[in-house]
Amino acid sequence: MPNVRFYYFPVKGLGESVRLLFSYGGQDFEDKRIAVEDWPAFKLSTPFGQMPVLEIDGKAYAQSFAISRYLGRKYGLSGADAEEDLEIDQNVDFVNDIRAKAATVQYEADAELKAKKHAEFSKDVYPALLEKLDEIIKENNGHIAAGKLTWADFVFAGMFDYLKVMLQVPDLEKKYPSYQQVVDAVYSQPKIQAYIKKSTSIIK
Amino acid sequence: MPNVRFYYFPVKGLGESVRLLFSYGGQDFEDKRIAVEDWPAFKLSTPFGQMPVLEIDGKAYAQSFAISRYLGRKYGLSGADAEEDLEIDQNVDFVNDIRAKAATVQYEADAELKAKKHAEFSKDVYPALLEKLDEIIKENNGHIAAGKLTWADFVFAGMFDYLKVMLQVPDLEKKYPSYQQVVDAVYSQPKIQAYIKKSTSIIK
Repeated sequence: MPNVRFYYFPVKGLGESVRLLFSYGGQDFEDKRIAVEDWPAFKLSTPFGQMPVLEIDGKAYAQSFAISRYLGRKYGLSGADAEEDLEIDQNVDFVNDIRAKAATVQYEADAELKAKKHAEFSKDVYPALLEKLDEIIKENNGHIAAGKLTWADFVFAGMFDYLKVMLQVPDLEKKYPSYQQVVDAVYSQPKIQAYIKKSTSIIK
Repeated sequence: MPNVRFYYFPVKGLGESVRLLFSYGGQDFEDKRIAVEDWPAFKLSTPFGQMPVLEIDGKAYAQSFAISRYLGRKYGLSGADAEEDLEIDQNVDFVNDIRAKAATVQYEADAELKAKKHAEFSKDVYPALLEKLDEIIKENNGHIAAGKLTWADFVFAGMFDYLKVMLQVPDLEKKYPSYQQVVDAVYSQPKIQAYIKKSTSIIK
């Protein structure tokens, strides 16, 4: 087995999908949680000045979705053919579009502007995107794509708490029970249950 | 050969990589260019309310990068193994991070705020990202990843003009000749030359 280290902040954010996929795949890994105050010094050693970082036998990789796709392929969570992989990638990118929109609000430093953008997006941007995602999950049997458990579900389940924080809707799954279905499909896996018991992630 | 239609605005933007990949792969396709004024009506028929849209034998797919990855796989422009594919995906996501940062400025409706953000990003955000990309290309032999021609080069070459518009640096390749190397690696392909001659894209 290779020597695997995974570096991310001590939150779920864009790192949890990778931790979940390793747990599902039964791959031991060093779960390195970098405190915010240690980040500036650590940043210089990362491939792109970003986290997460995955280190396999000393070689470093970055980018949450790229890493998740790779692990999905390793652990039998990809599509059955190129077209199904396209569908998975497409739907992950759509989920990421929602996250990215919300992130432009979340990381706006000017508090007044942030509040204004949040109000605007909550009215004009998020509803259509969230409805569409609900529709996609319903069409896919309670999954993000391909009508079955794929790495796309791990991406969504891993970032769901973070998404709710950014959208400022703590009970989003009440309005969209389909979202909870995806989360449950991942978290009900026995190996994920074992991981949860030892996980130290704060909820975010 | 399947019946292929590709829908995008009459610009390069996030659509050109797909047109370039089809040309490289020798795949005939209907190059549907949707005028901005026709977009609101057409939007309702798209899978996610977004373009580009790829239609293969009547089935529609969205998301520029997902489609480009799919076509790269079809036309022998992927990695040699899962690790090389991870590296390609990772570097494409990094290129997209730059594009996405610039897009938050480009599509800011408030002109004053847009100018402020552009000044701020040009000082504090873009330089490190652009330097890093330059470094990546140099390490990869004049390519985006894997030290050879891959679909990642098509993604970059396809969006380069658009990126320059958004960064507001029309001669970006003067500062980073490595960028031009990637563009040339794609546009020097004989099949791409043939496509260019008949292309109707406006430069953007």
